[in-house]
Amino acid sequence: MNAPTAPLHLLPTVNQRPVPPALIAALQARLGTRCSTAQVVREQHGRDESSFDVPPPGAVVFAQSTDEVAFVVQLAAEHRVPIIPFGVGTSLEGHLLAVEGGISLDVSQMNQVLAINAEDLTVTVQPGVTRTQLNTAVKSTGLFFPIDPGADATIGGMTATRASGTNAVRYGTMRENVLALEVVTASGEVIRTGTHAKKSSAGYDLTRLMVGSEGTLGVITEVTVKLYPLPEAVMAATCSFASLADAVNTTIQIIQLGVPIARCELLDSTTVKVVNQHSKLSLPESAMLLMEFHGSPAGVNEQVELVQAIAAENNGNAFEWAATPEERTRLWTARHNAYFAGVQSRPGCKAITTDTCVPISRLADALLDSVTEAQQAGIPYFLVGHVGDGNFHMGYLIDPNVPAERETAERLNHQLVQRALALGGTCTGEHGVGLHKMEFLVAETGSGAVDMMRAIKRALDPQNILNPGKIFSL
Amino acid sequence: MNAPTAPLHLLPTVNQRPVPPALIAALQARLGTRCSTAQVVREQHGRDESSFDVPPPGAVVFAQSTDEVAFVVQLAAEHRVPIIPFGVGTSLEGHLLAVEGGISLDVSQMNQVLAINAEDLTVTVQPGVTRTQLNTAVKSTGLFFPIDPGADATIGGMTATRASGTNAVRYGTMRENVLALEVVTASGEVIRTGTHAKKSSAGYDLTRLMVGSEGTLGVITEVTVKLYPLPEAVMAATCSFASLADAVNTTIQIIQLGVPIARCELLDSTTVKVVNQHSKLSLPESAMLLMEFHGSPAGVNEQVELVQAIAAENNGNAFEWAATPEERTRLWTARHNAYFAGVQSRPGCKAITTDTCVPISRLADALLDSVTEAQQAGIPYFLVGHVGDGNFHMGYLIDPNVPAERETAERLNHQLVQRALALGGTCTGEHGVGLHKMEFLVAETGSGAVDMMRAIKRALDPQNILNPGKIFSL
Repeated sequence: MNAPTAPLHLLPTVNQRPVPPALIAALQARLGTRCSTAQVVREQHGRDESSFDVPPPGAVVFAQSTDEVAFVVQLAAEHRVPIIPFGVGTSLEGHLLAVEGGISLDVSQMNQVLAINAEDLTVTVQPGVTRTQLNTAVKSTGLFFPIDPGADATIGGMTATRASGTNAVRYGTMRENVLALEVVTASGEVIRTGTHAKKSSAGYDLTRLMVGSEGTLGVITEVTVKLYPLPEAVMAATCSFASLADAVNTTIQIIQLGVPIARCELLDSTTVKVVNQHSKLSLPESAMLLMEFHGSPAGVNEQVELVQAIAAENNGNAFEWAATPEERTRLWTARHNAYFAGVQSRPGCKAITTDTCVPISRLADALLDSVTEAQQAGIPYFLVGHVGDGNFHMGYLIDPNVPAERETAERLNHQLVQRALALGGTCTGEHGVGLHKMEFLVAETGSGAVDMMRAIKRALDPQNILNPGKIFSL
Repeated sequence: MNAPTAPLHLLPTVNQRPVPPALIAALQARLGTRCSTAQVVREQHGRDESSFDVPPPGAVVFAQSTDEVAFVVQLAAEHRVPIIPFGVGTSLEGHLLAVEGGISLDVSQMNQVLAINAEDLTVTVQPGVTRTQLNTAVKSTGLFFPIDPGADATIGGMTATRASGTNAVRYGTMRENVLALEVVTASGEVIRTGTHAKKSSAGYDLTRLMVGSEGTLGVITEVTVKLYPLPEAVMAATCSFASLADAVNTTIQIIQLGVPIARCELLDSTTVKVVNQHSKLSLPESAMLLMEFHGSPAGVNEQVELVQAIAAENNGNAFEWAATPEERTRLWTARHNAYFAGVQSRPGCKAITTDTCVPISRLADALLDSVTEAQQAGIPYFLVGHVGDGNFHMGYLIDPNVPAERETAERLNHQLVQRALALGGTCTGEHGVGLHKMEFLVAETGSGAVDMMRAIKRALDPQNILNPGKIFSL
């Protein structure tokens, strides 16, 4: 085990800019009680699911329209005060923390589904709509929206972090599924990117530039995403394995053979245990793949036969089926709650969550050594993975009051990321950089590319008011 | 028929910057005869497949390595001289024209396949590798690269224009298929974007920003793209229809039902005729869909049955099968050559090619009225379409020496683009903006979004040396 070669980035630097009373007064003049400086509201908006603890923002504004977002950003620009877009607060990487102070701009009340274009397989929503709200709204059309991070995040937040989830192995991530945006720029101007056409070569891909920009280039006020026909046939199964390596190798072969599997999720035995406890299930407590197959009845049968054969060659047990839609929902809800199950398995803990993603052929190299290291360190952890994408999460469960535990977790995280980068992978498959992966971003892409990101940031937000202090230092 | 509301953009403004003798001398000192000022070489690099005629570049450089590209760009930056990246010259939109003079940087000798990562379904190539070279190189792996513009374009050029082709309806465009890039920036620095992982949330999506930037933000020197397993079963068929509307409506229903069709191409009866002549085929000379189905044998049969039923409901004739691989190749080669067949059908003509793409439900509205308008104007044209994507091309065949013909073609083009934009579409599905669609870009995305593109351009290329005068005016 090598010592980390760079200093550990344990806690963010905090350098808060004050929110002037004149700005608060101007906001309250138009928005009334929807601009709040109450301690409890600020504190609610001053944390997310990350393990950091920084002072809350100076004020919280609840916007209800694009006009209001533009108004707030214009005022903030006049006063050079930071704006931190806020959805439902499920970031894992400190995106929502007011490390430079300023205003938390809560868009959760912008939660209208604006247009369901079923005949074009698209839907346009305000940014505060959550993924389950979206799917409820389109249910009667026979279409669905596949991107499903663990939390019931907002579409705005998922766009800002380039989120994915369990279905990404077949349906892609927010990168592939956002067609068009409305965005309020750093000067408070409203622009539109993209069209409703499936493809376009019209100029710079501003849509893709905004997707994953973590609120640092604009405030997203409208999102058009792709929808998909509900598959004719759906089958979901679990398969338990004698070892983690067997489950991982099964995954690698499924992907290399081009099976269009819809979901291919890994849990290790420890995590199955906590999921069983949390969700009152009785899954066999060994390394396990949770899989789902979409297609025509014949197509699904073909996929299942092939995957069963691959699993059997890798010492997998017989598939256990989630036969009814209710059983499927129960299984996937349990999977989505695995993060919370993990965190709750150690009362009072915080999770430091990793998010590496590697080329599929290197998944075993990346994952198995990281698990061994965590076991050797003796730290409690959970392990879940969108392994079909080469993406997995270790959650190191630390007592936030014991610095040595945080240090151990950060050391393990550091080793894990360095390993992933050496294998041609990325430090973050779907959570974003935020505060926690800034040093890793430079290691991953090189200082030249990060300098290019800085140049873009300076050009589009010259006063550095949009979610400052995230992704890279300026 | 409405008169166009904006002035027609008939010919590009030319404002050539000279290439100083000292720069030529410095280039020749290192590159010898690979820096040429010969009239014939300059003229070869001073045109593309567009209908514009502007003076050639001041010099042509043939680079053989990333180092050489960086060297050339550094020198050009010192002298503030434009650099126009050049592959094999198949742009349809004037991308390669030296409207501000400068150096054509030919990368066609950078044509090495650098790494075939079959186990990760990716390949890394130099920018001068063409799509057929790439597919020849990976053939023994059982994998293929699906993106296929009509011409045998280079991967670098296809990346720069966000190209697609006949397979995009199933496999996506260059936007979805480029994983990572090496790029020489405007200052001559070499940077890398992306990783070999399938997904990432690590900072701004510089890969997607470069894809489609038409050589204006950097010179692409290495491209990593996705590969796909060759499908177990492939079936290709043509289906002729009594009317164009029937063929279009069949397409719309295929897509709305979510059939994972691999290719769904439209030709009108006139175009079938010229394709028959050019490729010595005997396709029935009526509106026609050319289709291909990929999957398992059972999956392909399911798709075929469903599509046959849809076509029959829309007055389609029985499918005619391209039964052998050789027949399939012959069919698709003919389709790829349709552009050249069209141009050669009127000796001495130039084609003014349209490229709108609309949401699938609006395809009939966009396409049928445009055809009627062309017929009423009495101008010769061909019509081909990647209609499964909502994308089609009219090629107006004009005598370049008759200004009235160019004017008619531009008027028709203008009407067609305005119609597509009103339907929620884009002025360019896959060819790029280049010189020809600059005014349309503003109409499509709004001046605010184009101003954002300008700000990015100024930040990344402050001297405006990278392919200046394209996409938007500065």
